[in-house]
Amino acid sequence: MTNFFLRTLREDPADAEVTSHRLLVRAGYIRRQAPGIFAWLPLGLRVKGKIERVIREEMERAGAHEVHFPALLPREPYEVTNRWTEYGDALFRLHDRKGADYLLAPTHEEAFTLLVKDLYSSYKDLPLTIYQIQDKYRDEARPRAGLLRGREFTMKDAYSFDVSDAGLDASYQAQRDAYERIFARLGLDYVIVQADAGAMGGSKSEEFLHPTPVGEDTFVRSAGGYAANVEAFTTVAPSPVPFDELPEPVVLDSPNTPTIQTLVDLANAEYPRPDGRAWTAADTLKNVVLALTHLDGSREVVVVGIPGDREIDQKRVEVAFAPAEVEAATEADFATRPGLVKGYIGPWSPTGDGAVLGAESSTGIPYFLDPRVVDGTEWITGANLDQKHVFGLVAGRDFVADGTVEAANVRAGDPAPDGSGPVELARGMEIGHVFQLGRKYAEALGLKVLDENGKLATVTMGSYGIGVTRILAIIAELHNDDKGLIWPASVAPFDVHVLATGKDQAAFDAAEQVVASLEAAGLDVLYDDRPKLSPGVKFADAELLGIPKIVIAGRGVAEGVVELWDRATGERTPVAISEVADALTA
Amino acid sequence: MTNFFLRTLREDPADAEVTSHRLLVRAGYIRRQAPGIFAWLPLGLRVKGKIERVIREEMERAGAHEVHFPALLPREPYEVTNRWTEYGDALFRLHDRKGADYLLAPTHEEAFTLLVKDLYSSYKDLPLTIYQIQDKYRDEARPRAGLLRGREFTMKDAYSFDVSDAGLDASYQAQRDAYERIFARLGLDYVIVQADAGAMGGSKSEEFLHPTPVGEDTFVRSAGGYAANVEAFTTVAPSPVPFDELPEPVVLDSPNTPTIQTLVDLANAEYPRPDGRAWTAADTLKNVVLALTHLDGSREVVVVGIPGDREIDQKRVEVAFAPAEVEAATEADFATRPGLVKGYIGPWSPTGDGAVLGAESSTGIPYFLDPRVVDGTEWITGANLDQKHVFGLVAGRDFVADGTVEAANVRAGDPAPDGSGPVELARGMEIGHVFQLGRKYAEALGLKVLDENGKLATVTMGSYGIGVTRILAIIAELHNDDKGLIWPASVAPFDVHVLATGKDQAAFDAAEQVVASLEAAGLDVLYDDRPKLSPGVKFADAELLGIPKIVIAGRGVAEGVVELWDRATGERTPVAISEVADALTA
Repeated sequence: MTNFFLRTLREDPADAEVTSHRLLVRAGYIRRQAPGIFAWLPLGLRVKGKIERVIREEMERAGAHEVHFPALLPREPYEVTNRWTEYGDALFRLHDRKGADYLLAPTHEEAFTLLVKDLYSSYKDLPLTIYQIQDKYRDEARPRAGLLRGREFTMKDAYSFDVSDAGLDASYQAQRDAYERIFARLGLDYVIVQADAGAMGGSKSEEFLHPTPVGEDTFVRSAGGYAANVEAFTTVAPSPVPFDELPEPVVLDSPNTPTIQTLVDLANAEYPRPDGRAWTAADTLKNVVLALTHLDGSREVVVVGIPGDREIDQKRVEVAFAPAEVEAATEADFATRPGLVKGYIGPWSPTGDGAVLGAESSTGIPYFLDPRVVDGTEWITGANLDQKHVFGLVAGRDFVADGTVEAANVRAGDPAPDGSGPVELARGMEIGHVFQLGRKYAEALGLKVLDENGKLATVTMGSYGIGVTRILAIIAELHNDDKGLIWPASVAPFDVHVLATGKDQAAFDAAEQVVASLEAAGLDVLYDDRPKLSPGVKFADAELLGIPKIVIAGRGVAEGVVELWDRATGERTPVAISEVADALTA
Repeated sequence: MTNFFLRTLREDPADAEVTSHRLLVRAGYIRRQAPGIFAWLPLGLRVKGKIERVIREEMERAGAHEVHFPALLPREPYEVTNRWTEYGDALFRLHDRKGADYLLAPTHEEAFTLLVKDLYSSYKDLPLTIYQIQDKYRDEARPRAGLLRGREFTMKDAYSFDVSDAGLDASYQAQRDAYERIFARLGLDYVIVQADAGAMGGSKSEEFLHPTPVGEDTFVRSAGGYAANVEAFTTVAPSPVPFDELPEPVVLDSPNTPTIQTLVDLANAEYPRPDGRAWTAADTLKNVVLALTHLDGSREVVVVGIPGDREIDQKRVEVAFAPAEVEAATEADFATRPGLVKGYIGPWSPTGDGAVLGAESSTGIPYFLDPRVVDGTEWITGANLDQKHVFGLVAGRDFVADGTVEAANVRAGDPAPDGSGPVELARGMEIGHVFQLGRKYAEALGLKVLDENGKLATVTMGSYGIGVTRILAIIAELHNDDKGLIWPASVAPFDVHVLATGKDQAAFDAAEQVVASLEAAGLDVLYDDRPKLSPGVKFADAELLGIPKIVIAGRGVAEGVVELWDRATGERTPVAISEVADALTA
């Protein structure tokens, strides 16, 4: 360590919000260069290399071949697939000295598709799966959490190419299996959840989530085996109810009830149900006004009706309206749409011709409904008159929507769509993503091959990503204590950390003997040979660095003994110097 | 090979100017993504990995520790060292969503300096040498020659940090020695030449040039051991000559002599020397008008006087006036400076007060002289009058300069500055560069450590670069024939290429047996198991790919025999299947 490049820090970095960020910086694994952009110091690079090795081995076992694309790519292919625009501010864009547009690639679907188009032309060349381990760029609005969400990050991204859907299924399964092996080897728990394909297009899509309360993704799962992230969860809609016998809606005064709670309280106090059952939020229809920004920059105001006991889920509503951006409507939106009576909005009004929301209505404002609002259900909702609500408004009779959207939040107890029972909610961090792109990119970029009958067939593709640097951070996040990091042996920067303590030359001589015996046994050793440091400082550094096995050469060397120190358990065991290598390779 | 990602091409790529580019694309090692930007296919990536492994091993042996910096770096440090501006159009610049300026780093001096400043504070932490193998960016005006001059390229760049000059010398020598080992292991001839430090600043600077007639760098060397690139060559100036006895200059008519040759011809015809010796171009003083563009954008016109038998060397003159850019003066420059009589320019004129060039002269135009134009030398040169020259104009008496510049070309036979005899000229390609930055970057960025006396001392640095992708291209450039590539074993993508030929299953069975035995012997094997291809196609592909050892399983397998085919010599030798592994590992 006297000539190794390492400096441990006593203070936590000021900008570190999460444990992995704090410890990786303090222990000298990474160092910040700019927001969300880090340099890798020798210890960090070693851990990263070990993770990459596991991934490479499993990719090879899955029959995938490694390639490497540039980070700097020309605009044109991303223009064809519209991602030059869709990525918005998250894309780093630049131009060269001749004014040609380039980007720093956030993912490489286009480049891989074009490479295969460039070189392959026959079904005989397929199936093919190729991958790279490469540094990617995404200009996150709030880079934070250290490596968990950086602006530069290392990913393994693989792409499969098949002629048939069955071929794609097989390629997909091979990568999915490889991911299971990779996470098992890295000791990372995971749940495979159904996912929305999002901006990537395509059909089948699954995420590998590491379950953790501090995860930024929410997912749901049922005891019967269903698992999905909230974006991909689909609501089980009840059956429609016959409404021919239902009474007409009644408009009632509801002063000072701009919120669901005030409305329910007033309803129970002033307009109790004949059968005595209390009104609840679930009996109300909440109409939320949203503003969509479409890709062409145009702004559209829409209203979404959901049961009053639910909230709009930002991630779900974004998926529902993708690729448009979604935000709450502003005062300006309301000001230019006087038909919307804030706090008392509803799809129907007694003053006009009835329907006041929907593309065909008097306002022309598009109206979408939660899947639970099926025909024949009765609702208390705004009457589009100040301080008035309407009771017994019947879906399908008094109002209709332009469509249904999955915008309401998922709650524990909601039924899983596959009938496997109620779901529970949990949090996780995404560590991998496999999905079937299908023919979207191949179609856009013209990747066709001659099939067995000599006809041109569009290739079907899969895309498979693992965040290398994110995985490193998650492992650090999982394996630590108040003293520092505790690496699993499979990814530790060194196998063993040998400390020579005290001022006695004998301890250093013994330590060197141990180092030599360990290296002869094929182990990677970090040797703390720093002179003039107290044992306490060396112990503290060893605990911070987190190499799982530590050997302490101290006073005992006079009797030919050193101590084995297990970083995880804290246990210290005396061992004869001559037996250290055997003890650590056993 | 049936499921390997490879496609050989029959046609040369249209844009390939050099052999390595042509063959690496045709043989499926690399593929163009944009001008000067390539994707690495599996074969290419394997060769690159082998070169990187050699470099890593030798860096480790030299005590250097590996780190990794981002390609995307913030502007500020490069602003402090002025390189944000100095790099001009060669720098890829961009900004993030918040408008902060970034660059794609062409070299990392600033980042390394700041990292060490960030973490280290004492002389006890030094010496330190750290390196990375990383993808760099330079927006070349004319990216060409494939990997030899790309806009994205992989480099190993190392930086050393020392307190003392002696320490820097030792760190420098360790890297220099490592470079010699690296090039020896890669089988690359090299010449170590003195180099100009150029835009990097600093003092001692040496380049490793691979000598080749197609190299883009010119260097000189003497039989006595001197070697330098032309930019670094320094002229041996003759001693001054007493001029008290010399006659006055004479202005003579010289109609239609705007060039040196017409002038010499006229002089010999009309004004022969009294002693009968012919006038030669070396007796004339050629005054070249140059326009400098300074970093602040200002344009300055200067005149450089060189012996008429020499030319301005663009690279040397650029170094001489760096960091200004140098170009020939334009018609507009002449138009605004009527004192310069085109074709008849000289530093002196009979019509004025004598001196017409130089900062102090009547024109105020700066005037620089070649080091050979020492005091007392006599020249024929322009008289600043149309169709007139002056004979016997004496340097130091009739004209003086504002300084000397090394702007004239170097010629075979010029004396080496170290007295080791006349030099010869040769061409080479730069494959490595070691140089002492000194304290320039540490000074600019404030990298100081406490020295042994507890006082702050500015650190002194060295910078050491090897172009990984360029080396790969040079190896390809060196090792090929009209059939394709011929890799040296140390960097070949596979150790052995096994071909199963014919339609007979027995040949494929035998080939698989050979593959298994070779892999059991620890060799990397590429197996051409493609069915339904003629032997000729497989042979041609094997020759194009250039794996040095080839095994052909064909008709002979009935007798238990295959052929060993040496790609370099073309020799084919029959060997028993059971003995192939032994033959290839011997």
